[in-house]
Amino acid sequence: MATTSKATWIWYPGDYEIWLGNKMNNRRTERGAFFPPFWKTDSHFVTVEFSTVVELAEAEEVTIAAEGIFNIKLDGKLQFGMPEKFLLPAGKHNLNIKVWNQATPPALYVEGKTVYTDASWRVTFEDKEWIDESGKASDTSATIYMQAGAWNFGREERPSLYKLCREALPAVAVTEADGGKLYDFGRETFGYLVLEGVEGDGEVAVYYGESPEEAQDKAFCETLDRIRFEATTITDLATGKAVERTARYVFDNSKALRYVYVECEGATPAGVSLEYEYAPVTYRGSFKSNDEELNRIWEIGAYTMHLTTREFFIDGIKRDRWVWSGDAVQSYLMNYYLFFDSECVKRTTWLLRGKDPVTAHTNTIMDYTFYWFIGIYDYYMYTGDRAFVKQIYPRMQTMMEYVLGRTNSRGMVEGMTGDWVFVDWADGYLDKKGELAIEQVLLCKSLETMALCAALAEVEEDIPTYEKLAAELRAKLLPTFWNEAKQAMVHNCVEGEQSEAVTRYANMFATFFGYLSEEQQQQIKHSVLLNDEILKITTPYMRFYELEALCVLGEQEAVMGEMKDYWGGMLREGATSFWEKYNPTESGTQHLAMYGRPYGKSLCHAWGASPIYLLGRYYLGVKPTKAGYASYEVRPTLGGLEWMEGTIPTPNGEIRVKMDKQSISVYATEGEGVLHLPTGGDPIRIECGKELTINY
Amino acid sequence: MATTSKATWIWYPGDYEIWLGNKMNNRRTERGAFFPPFWKTDSHFVTVEFSTVVELAEAEEVTIAAEGIFNIKLDGKLQFGMPEKFLLPAGKHNLNIKVWNQATPPALYVEGKTVYTDASWRVTFEDKEWIDESGKASDTSATIYMQAGAWNFGREERPSLYKLCREALPAVAVTEADGGKLYDFGRETFGYLVLEGVEGDGEVAVYYGESPEEAQDKAFCETLDRIRFEATTITDLATGKAVERTARYVFDNSKALRYVYVECEGATPAGVSLEYEYAPVTYRGSFKSNDEELNRIWEIGAYTMHLTTREFFIDGIKRDRWVWSGDAVQSYLMNYYLFFDSECVKRTTWLLRGKDPVTAHTNTIMDYTFYWFIGIYDYYMYTGDRAFVKQIYPRMQTMMEYVLGRTNSRGMVEGMTGDWVFVDWADGYLDKKGELAIEQVLLCKSLETMALCAALAEVEEDIPTYEKLAAELRAKLLPTFWNEAKQAMVHNCVEGEQSEAVTRYANMFATFFGYLSEEQQQQIKHSVLLNDEILKITTPYMRFYELEALCVLGEQEAVMGEMKDYWGGMLREGATSFWEKYNPTESGTQHLAMYGRPYGKSLCHAWGASPIYLLGRYYLGVKPTKAGYASYEVRPTLGGLEWMEGTIPTPNGEIRVKMDKQSISVYATEGEGVLHLPTGGDPIRIECGKELTINY
Repeated sequence: MATTSKATWIWYPGDYEIWLGNKMNNRRTERGAFFPPFWKTDSHFVTVEFSTVVELAEAEEVTIAAEGIFNIKLDGKLQFGMPEKFLLPAGKHNLNIKVWNQATPPALYVEGKTVYTDASWRVTFEDKEWIDESGKASDTSATIYMQAGAWNFGREERPSLYKLCREALPAVAVTEADGGKLYDFGRETFGYLVLEGVEGDGEVAVYYGESPEEAQDKAFCETLDRIRFEATTITDLATGKAVERTARYVFDNSKALRYVYVECEGATPAGVSLEYEYAPVTYRGSFKSNDEELNRIWEIGAYTMHLTTREFFIDGIKRDRWVWSGDAVQSYLMNYYLFFDSECVKRTTWLLRGKDPVTAHTNTIMDYTFYWFIGIYDYYMYTGDRAFVKQIYPRMQTMMEYVLGRTNSRGMVEGMTGDWVFVDWADGYLDKKGELAIEQVLLCKSLETMALCAALAEVEEDIPTYEKLAAELRAKLLPTFWNEAKQAMVHNCVEGEQSEAVTRYANMFATFFGYLSEEQQQQIKHSVLLNDEILKITTPYMRFYELEALCVLGEQEAVMGEMKDYWGGMLREGATSFWEKYNPTESGTQHLAMYGRPYGKSLCHAWGASPIYLLGRYYLGVKPTKAGYASYEVRPTLGGLEWMEGTIPTPNGEIRVKMDKQSISVYATEGEGVLHLPTGGDPIRIECGKELTINY
Repeated sequence: MATTSKATWIWYPGDYEIWLGNKMNNRRTERGAFFPPFWKTDSHFVTVEFSTVVELAEAEEVTIAAEGIFNIKLDGKLQFGMPEKFLLPAGKHNLNIKVWNQATPPALYVEGKTVYTDASWRVTFEDKEWIDESGKASDTSATIYMQAGAWNFGREERPSLYKLCREALPAVAVTEADGGKLYDFGRETFGYLVLEGVEGDGEVAVYYGESPEEAQDKAFCETLDRIRFEATTITDLATGKAVERTARYVFDNSKALRYVYVECEGATPAGVSLEYEYAPVTYRGSFKSNDEELNRIWEIGAYTMHLTTREFFIDGIKRDRWVWSGDAVQSYLMNYYLFFDSECVKRTTWLLRGKDPVTAHTNTIMDYTFYWFIGIYDYYMYTGDRAFVKQIYPRMQTMMEYVLGRTNSRGMVEGMTGDWVFVDWADGYLDKKGELAIEQVLLCKSLETMALCAALAEVEEDIPTYEKLAAELRAKLLPTFWNEAKQAMVHNCVEGEQSEAVTRYANMFATFFGYLSEEQQQQIKHSVLLNDEILKITTPYMRFYELEALCVLGEQEAVMGEMKDYWGGMLREGATSFWEKYNPTESGTQHLAMYGRPYGKSLCHAWGASPIYLLGRYYLGVKPTKAGYASYEVRPTLGGLEWMEGTIPTPNGEIRVKMDKQSISVYATEGEGVLHLPTGGDPIRIECGKELTINY
């Protein structure tokens, strides 16, 4: 995606992301059936006006390319046709280009010596520029303009043709089994299967598996392909799409797999391989320690993140391959400690939000709506990208309007028909009725986020509104849910009555959101977080927050044990990427089942990679204290390790931390940093570009 | 579009109409530049679920075709691939088919012996059918389902390929002029220019004109084409599109014209002709009288309507070719007395509304929003199609929410930035500031319409809300705008103060909406409608309502004079279709100019055809009194004619009326009718299927 010119393709912000996201979400298949999401799929504005004001010392020729039919207006005057070259006269001029495209997002590329398309161009989907009887144009001051959306696509990189990278990947082992062949690619991977040198006419059936059991279970494996070779054609039997027969056939749709079981009838391939598909991210974060198992956990976490960081942050590579807000907000946090791919965060945020009107919660899930809000302020804190907050803020407003339109007389949210109150996959009963404490905690944080983002977006009138709503709700949280006898927040209230149940969820979020007093924090640590009587969490998803809460409470040693136990447990089960769910009490093929299906579980799930975040933020101990690491703190904790070292990426550089039982070194390329020693005392200033080493 | 099967293509209601409308609106060009609308262009839902419940005595094979990628769920279970044939087992089953298509609206065609797609299928853009951990599906009772949209497309008639009819049309005269050739097609017409037998390589330039002056004015004609012939290719120089060179070249985009001026450089066509394009409507209404000029006015009106009745009712065929609400609501009314093409009314209504969220008035024009509401109840009254009101009602709600969000403290609308307060093109100053009387009158009627449609859509809770809002506003109309000294409603109030201006607009609408007392009606007849001191109306658009008001007041004789004067005046100027604007005091090429451009005026404008409506409704005197002509009245008036006869179409039949100075005959094929004699007395019952003749 590199370009030597400053020019880049531009579009209506969010629209390309939504369009590309539809392509991605809709690549899901289930046993040969197309499987799109069950929520509203939005689309792009089909007619978009791009404009800029140019000031030229001399006339300048620009080249113009568009995805769509377009016109050019110079100082309000329409120009003939759709020229590839256009001469801008010297002087100050308004340049407006309108593009129409139903199938893919209207996009524009203009390149000249000084005039070129970039995010500084304005865009609108309705310029409201009518003319009156005399030919006079209307006042367009009420037209809402946004800054153009852009990645860094060069002239030849038409946005609608965007593809991830591919690389050939051979199988590492082949075994004959049951009349077919089982190919093992060595570890969890992703891509397009390739059949080479197919001899004869007939059908080839391919069964994919994250496990050998799945690949060889023709009746229950989650994904499969069937294909027919005839004299001159190759036909995909699921889509009906036929292509000319060639010696090398690459399947149309990508799949997750470690194993492939191939059965042939008449047509036999000489070779089976994979075109591995991946996002070209850089591993900017790193972690090493004296504990080899922990290092392996970090590496497998990083690989899990790489597989699930694609055009967007997806949940898992096998089953949904959809973008889910609850999963994404964790991917964002892990990403800040690994790839620092800001573009992928922005893309995912646009896609998750979709467009107005709001007709459901994000992914239909109430809690996921709240994570969506929270992720935006996280993004701002890590990247300092205020421009993005400004662009997305109007959609935050309409999303919050939707939420507030569904609060009850106490200003709290309860699941209404059509709302999915998810919280977590739990191995036990999780009551979803009435006011769930966790949902109110998340709503409260979302309202605080709205107030902060209103300030960043300079929508002054919104700030007191959201501050007031947040304060009112926060004032109700503990009176409503805290139970002194249980020394914990209860799980929910139904019709104003506290239930008897205590779960970990609200308690852990309230901890790291700082909603509890020091005393209450210590109480819930023992009454809930470290209490085995309380319903155990069996998803890495909620373990993320559970362990984060314990880290906030200074329990890094306990968390280290949990990590080695839980993620180490998956490694000992042979995991080559981390799973959607892991219950250490299960064994064998029990680990593969979920959703009532024997291989329903995803064995490569982004939310499985949380040690990436925990190790960076709570062991190496680095976090921004002002947006974009303008200032930051380093608060390293060995948590039982002998030594550790690692790198934390920052917007334009990195922070390196090294610690053993005697000393700590920190080196940073940007930002105002302070080092907090585990032994306490005043924080020590970290000078930019100079290694700081302290014996403690 | 005929099909022998009962099966038809289905889609999300309104979505196909909006998509097709974009294609149509975006065919506008201005001197070789693409010229899309300046309002928000909406798009279709890209993923749509279609469903039905089947009950089969025996298994049944259906064929399935879709525009898009699709899946099939039988009783909740996904099926393999996208089969063309599918066997439904005997018994009761849920059949769900989900289709995804970004470029064109997802559409579905299923055909079996007893199972087939039609408007009885349900559709949704979000089924919210998630599954929990155990595989159990969610409760989808909050999902909003609509009835499928459909026309009557047979299996081979894929909706995305829909085209109007074409017919070869030769020029009637060719003259050499100025180095080029001027072709005359005899009358205003529309279609695709054809160049035949082009010899040599080089450019051909085509200048279109509704008048010979326009066609020959290369610098100022409104539309033109430039094309280059090379050895093996033909290139359209506006779009850059190149095709293989053939002996017969048909231009891509249609144009309005009577004349074409063709200049060649190097490449010379042997023949120039037209592929006339038209909608295959039936002339179900008719009118004849002793007055040949009046008959000619009706015929030219009908032809004007035919040219502007296309995929949708458009304003005029030359310039915009856009769908405008103010124009459309008049086309609807004329249509009920001519083609009775209900489908075109529904399509146009969907397109004009577009989708949520509402970001501007219809076509950005405040008054056009109100006409949109009013047109829906008109449609119901003429057709009796309550199902359509039910389908469109949710969009009426959100449109009215937008309007009510822009009312002032007195519950009235004033133009805000970004609102186009249009009213009319006037040859004189028309104040658009403050509360315009006409806008409040239209808003009041719109609120009344909302209450009536809420009842039809069975949204009971809305009825009292809108009734109250309508009653409150209506109670304010006369106190606010009536001026006893002027014996009229004034044009506007600015900051609570009546202005001095009186215009015809509010007064004429208040008359036929029945908002004035008998006495006030008689007052405004003399003080406004028949008063030459009041700013004259110079568009057929507002003459429509002006003459309607006079007809309601029994002034058919005066109106007959006006029609012969005004529409007769256009005929005497050589019109072969009626114009966008006509000022009898202008002459020569003055008639061609508008919008500050010498040929800016459209010489074929739907709103020019109002005699079609006036003659049917106020002379033949037929109108429905219950929805869909379940009951109707005939109140014929010669208005100065010797005799007249005509046919009025009804949903499933027609009403024929014949009248001279002695007798009246009426024959009707459906409905409960009554005849009101011009001499007064009790109405006489019209028996269905039996000619009633009365000497009066």
